[in-house]
Amino acid sequence: MKTLIATSLKFIDNQLWVLDQHLLPHQTQWLCCDNVDQMVALIKNLQIRGAPLIAIGASLLIGYLAEQQAPAEQLMTAIQQLRAARPTAVNLMHAMDRLQLALKQHGPNILPTLAVQIFEEDVALCSRMAKHGAALIRPGDQLLTHCNTGSLATAGVGTALGVICAAHQQHHNIHVYIDETRPLLQGGRLTTWELKQANIPHTLISDSMAAVLMQTGKIAAVWVGADRIAANGDTANKIGTYSLAINAFYHKVPFYVVAPSSTVDIQCASGAQIPIEQRAANEVRGVNGSFGNVCWAPDDTPAFNPAFDVTPAKLISGWILENGIYNQAQIESGVLGTLINK
Amino acid sequence: MKTLIATSLKFIDNQLWVLDQHLLPHQTQWLCCDNVDQMVALIKNLQIRGAPLIAIGASLLIGYLAEQQAPAEQLMTAIQQLRAARPTAVNLMHAMDRLQLALKQHGPNILPTLAVQIFEEDVALCSRMAKHGAALIRPGDQLLTHCNTGSLATAGVGTALGVICAAHQQHHNIHVYIDETRPLLQGGRLTTWELKQANIPHTLISDSMAAVLMQTGKIAAVWVGADRIAANGDTANKIGTYSLAINAFYHKVPFYVVAPSSTVDIQCASGAQIPIEQRAANEVRGVNGSFGNVCWAPDDTPAFNPAFDVTPAKLISGWILENGIYNQAQIESGVLGTLINK
Repeated sequence: MKTLIATSLKFIDNQLWVLDQHLLPHQTQWLCCDNVDQMVALIKNLQIRGAPLIAIGASLLIGYLAEQQAPAEQLMTAIQQLRAARPTAVNLMHAMDRLQLALKQHGPNILPTLAVQIFEEDVALCSRMAKHGAALIRPGDQLLTHCNTGSLATAGVGTALGVICAAHQQHHNIHVYIDETRPLLQGGRLTTWELKQANIPHTLISDSMAAVLMQTGKIAAVWVGADRIAANGDTANKIGTYSLAINAFYHKVPFYVVAPSSTVDIQCASGAQIPIEQRAANEVRGVNGSFGNVCWAPDDTPAFNPAFDVTPAKLISGWILENGIYNQAQIESGVLGTLINK
Repeated sequence: MKTLIATSLKFIDNQLWVLDQHLLPHQTQWLCCDNVDQMVALIKNLQIRGAPLIAIGASLLIGYLAEQQAPAEQLMTAIQQLRAARPTAVNLMHAMDRLQLALKQHGPNILPTLAVQIFEEDVALCSRMAKHGAALIRPGDQLLTHCNTGSLATAGVGTALGVICAAHQQHHNIHVYIDETRPLLQGGRLTTWELKQANIPHTLISDSMAAVLMQTGKIAAVWVGADRIAANGDTANKIGTYSLAINAFYHKVPFYVVAPSSTVDIQCASGAQIPIEQRAANEVRGVNGSFGNVCWAPDDTPAFNPAFDVTPAKLISGWILENGIYNQAQIESGVLGTLINK
């Protein structure tokens, strides 16, 4: 495959490299990935993360294995294993389904080409979403975002954070409040790092402080990504998104979801059908990463730890996809089905 | 003064001892406190914390200093210094005002007696609040609480957590979900510890997960304490309370505030007059305590860190004071003013 370079994923000299996001922002370490078990572990440990990025990383691995002359049966098994690595984000499943169909129809030789195409498509999709979304941001706006949805989470400029970065380039006076995003701190570790590198003014908050910022009129809009969007617009995203959406709704602050159409799962009629990954209690009892490993709760304290939650469509002001911006009325009329069927 | 023993404060053999709550739950270390500068530092560092408890601890120190024959002028200065140690919690100011008035009217000799009285009053107030509040809890209820409002935060059984413990004693089948309460983790460190000791079933969550529990119908009611209640019922409490109140309101989950009447500040017409303490950015960039000291964000990341927020009265279902339970209509009719003027 050709050379491909993104912020946290690259394919160079026939090797696939993943930037270990678990170690950011304190360590920058690239891992060479050449087998399925390793990629599944990287996904489960959030060393590679972001709904679009895990789909792209898994696709490139399949392309690499095909180039290494892995037989079709082995590739089919690999696709199935990767498809099951994270239950909530649907982009991964869609990418694996595309590869599986191509493998069945055309054989292994098509896979490297298709993997490169999936990477390059994402770059283009991000740019289109960023352009659509940035039109909703006014000069001087203070925005709030959750988790990390930037160039670390995609092959391109990102989803929600891609919109914000595009608006910054146009206006030069955007300010971003970042939810730290407990328990895994993607906001505190990754979005801070990205916005610092992009030289965009920002302020970190604990998740429960968002309401106070809205109460005092500081937030013009909330921008988040998505891990799966049901046919009716209900949106699964990183845990904490639903609470934030309720707070935005109460304060009449617009709440926007940005995602490529590969995030839409037309088979899910509503959010009730979206499976939610439950993770280990120790992630809630403390924190661990390249910065250290601490447990502040008694070490046998029971904990609840859903990785995602579902925000009902009625709390969402707009969905920004690569094809444009859709409002509640359009979503209710079934526009997502027509987009996906194209 | 006589021997006084609470969970995190004691007066024994003419010495005042404070349990260092910054070190809990991993270390149990009592500090002997014999001067004002030390007590101010303990309060600012949250080594002694809880709106009722800091008032009682400061009062016992004044009683101790009076017993040590400190002159009236020095006592007056000490009272003023302690009064200013935390700007939001009003119980401390009320206790210092009582001591100052007594000092002016009766001289230093009255102060030890009054300090003991303030301690013993709190024990009785907690019991009365617990009895009133427990009547609102049904067998089998799953409850949600924020921060720490138990025996660590008062001289008695606590405020909101005192209610929950009383209900547990009556029904034996209560389950408590605990907000970890970022950034300082009073829920994750202290409420977990207290409920484990009390053998009350509990589950720890990250603050942003509360909404999901309400969405799935798991929460019968939310119980919180207060640092200051304005005349109109607006309530300042630990940061995150306001977000939780909005989530409860949206899901039609009752939201109760439990506090002694010394928490009411009739001079504040509304929450807008309550000063909010802003704390250091490093508390949001990471965590530190007896469990360790880590910083996950880039170390120059700007952060917003209000220690408290204000929940408007319209989001509160009931206020449980030592005199009884008050609803919104009673609060609107000015009942808080009549209680305090008694």
